[in-house]
Amino acid sequence: MLDQTLAMIQPVDAVAMAEARAHQDRLTKPKGSLGALEDVAVRLAGIAAACPPPLPEPAALAIFAADHGVHARGVTPWPREVTAQMVANFLAGGAVANAFAAHVGASVTVVDVGVAADLPAAPALRSRKIAYGTADITQGPAMTREQAVAALEAGIETAGDLVESGVRCLITGDMGIANTTASAALICAFTGRDAADATGRGTGVDDVTYERKIAVVREALAVNLPRDTPLDVLAAVGGLEHAALAGFILGGAAARVPVILDGVIAGAAALAAAALAPDAIGYCVAGHRSAEPGHAAALAFLGMRPLVDLELRLGEGTGALLALPLVGAAVRVMHEVATFDSAGVTDKPS
Amino acid sequence: MLDQTLAMIQPVDAVAMAEARAHQDRLTKPKGSLGALEDVAVRLAGIAAACPPPLPEPAALAIFAADHGVHARGVTPWPREVTAQMVANFLAGGAVANAFAAHVGASVTVVDVGVAADLPAAPALRSRKIAYGTADITQGPAMTREQAVAALEAGIETAGDLVESGVRCLITGDMGIANTTASAALICAFTGRDAADATGRGTGVDDVTYERKIAVVREALAVNLPRDTPLDVLAAVGGLEHAALAGFILGGAAARVPVILDGVIAGAAALAAAALAPDAIGYCVAGHRSAEPGHAAALAFLGMRPLVDLELRLGEGTGALLALPLVGAAVRVMHEVATFDSAGVTDKPS
Repeated sequence: MLDQTLAMIQPVDAVAMAEARAHQDRLTKPKGSLGALEDVAVRLAGIAAACPPPLPEPAALAIFAADHGVHARGVTPWPREVTAQMVANFLAGGAVANAFAAHVGASVTVVDVGVAADLPAAPALRSRKIAYGTADITQGPAMTREQAVAALEAGIETAGDLVESGVRCLITGDMGIANTTASAALICAFTGRDAADATGRGTGVDDVTYERKIAVVREALAVNLPRDTPLDVLAAVGGLEHAALAGFILGGAAARVPVILDGVIAGAAALAAAALAPDAIGYCVAGHRSAEPGHAAALAFLGMRPLVDLELRLGEGTGALLALPLVGAAVRVMHEVATFDSAGVTDKPS
Repeated sequence: MLDQTLAMIQPVDAVAMAEARAHQDRLTKPKGSLGALEDVAVRLAGIAAACPPPLPEPAALAIFAADHGVHARGVTPWPREVTAQMVANFLAGGAVANAFAAHVGASVTVVDVGVAADLPAAPALRSRKIAYGTADITQGPAMTREQAVAALEAGIETAGDLVESGVRCLITGDMGIANTTASAALICAFTGRDAADATGRGTGVDDVTYERKIAVVREALAVNLPRDTPLDVLAAVGGLEHAALAGFILGGAAARVPVILDGVIAGAAALAAAALAPDAIGYCVAGHRSAEPGHAAALAFLGMRPLVDLELRLGEGTGALLALPLVGAAVRVMHEVATFDSAGVTDKPS
């Protein structure tokens, strides 16, 4: 399934993008005056190979949840159990991601790809558990190659099922205590950044823990790298949710549906997706810039500009959800705004 | 009416804000992890003097339209007629502001306070024309004191009527060819900035026009300043829509309803409102940062952080409209997100 998906991913459509750019310039507004939103609308035209592109509706958030062996190294003050507790919170509708999703009109699906606990079945929960968390990346690879492929395919399948059900915009979400540590390791591995540049304070660590976290990332890289292929890098220092998110991105790209990326975990996963299929990044919109320094590094490497920049550092997909109305508004302009000719408005003399 | 309104404006409620801050810290998320949105939710609690504050719904965009005598000085390539043409476009639903308002669920009202043409009546048009445009600010005051008060009161009345009809969030919009020139003059007058720092390229002017525009702003300041009172400053170098927008802000503050500010025109009007009633600014949320340099100067002076920062330079209220779902999402969190206790999620050990 992975190879088939990779083979299906085409570059975004340059003809539709040129058409969208030209259409923007005919609308009753000064040329370029919608700033970065014009680029978003043009990108969505390229994704759908249509101008105007369809509205990104309905939209679906998929929260990929997993635990991390590196938690044992004391990289976060939060107990590991919080991953499963937060999954229960998502399923009960009580998390920030639920409130944001309700506010912007997105559905919420939780995908268990590696939570270190048995979770009771629930309508919004997809059980695709590959392991009870990854192995400790300071001791060797986080996952076997087979586990990484299984997680990628869980993400591809989730994207495919959502698109099959009518979804026209995919939104990345994540939950996994200690996953900013694995994200930092992935970002270093794929961009060549130093551990000190790509490691942040996650959900809030003190100075001592922060120094330890940097050292742990450095150790993980020394133990595991270099590796022969992007898949091996992902398996070595990633998390099960990172692999699933990379698959989710690939699945969206294969289906020509836009994928709004959340913060540093999605950014790390996008680096893996880009290494596996460079054209996949054309199907992504950077929803926001998180407060994590590694996220800025990932976005810079991928050449992406985030839409929301409000120092969020929560994860769950919260930043990407906030970007959804901005993306929708950008596309709606292409459908509803009058041209200078149709509205009888005098254009600026050129 | 102006004096009555000024007398009604109270500081935002510190007790509700403290309660909101404490409530944020009990929710199932790391403390502070919603970044700038936590401040927005706290501010809205202070505005409503209630925790949680009501959702900012329904929301209403009011586009204040007027022409400018300084247009004669060649500060923009757009013909003056475009103001009236764009009003017609708003009323026909064909502008970007209409598409954005539809997307975020806000109503659109256009208020003619000074368009230099007779406009046919329309259901969404409030006719409060005070003059057929202002006088040229390089020749003397733009408005008489009486005209400025009438425009302020048109804004107060618009805010009052919208709130009376059930609106719980006011959004500022504007239309007026050459109004970035008057905005720059107001920003210089209220902040002490130099014309070269506060003047931008508006909807797109070439280098020659840009230099002339700076010189025109400088001339307007030299001809008109100093003045004894904020009202006199506003009348001297402002526009009728700036005065109306200042009144709209004051009206929102008096009614304890949040006002989402758009770009540089709203920023200049907010400076006037703040000079008339310093407590009024507590009722405002900076919707976005426009590409105009004067807007950043105004926001810095007012101590406001914009929510959306995407290089929009369109006006009409477009940037503020995009901020509405962000404000709504921030408030929704206060209503719907579980606490650590209620959800059985383990809090980080402190």
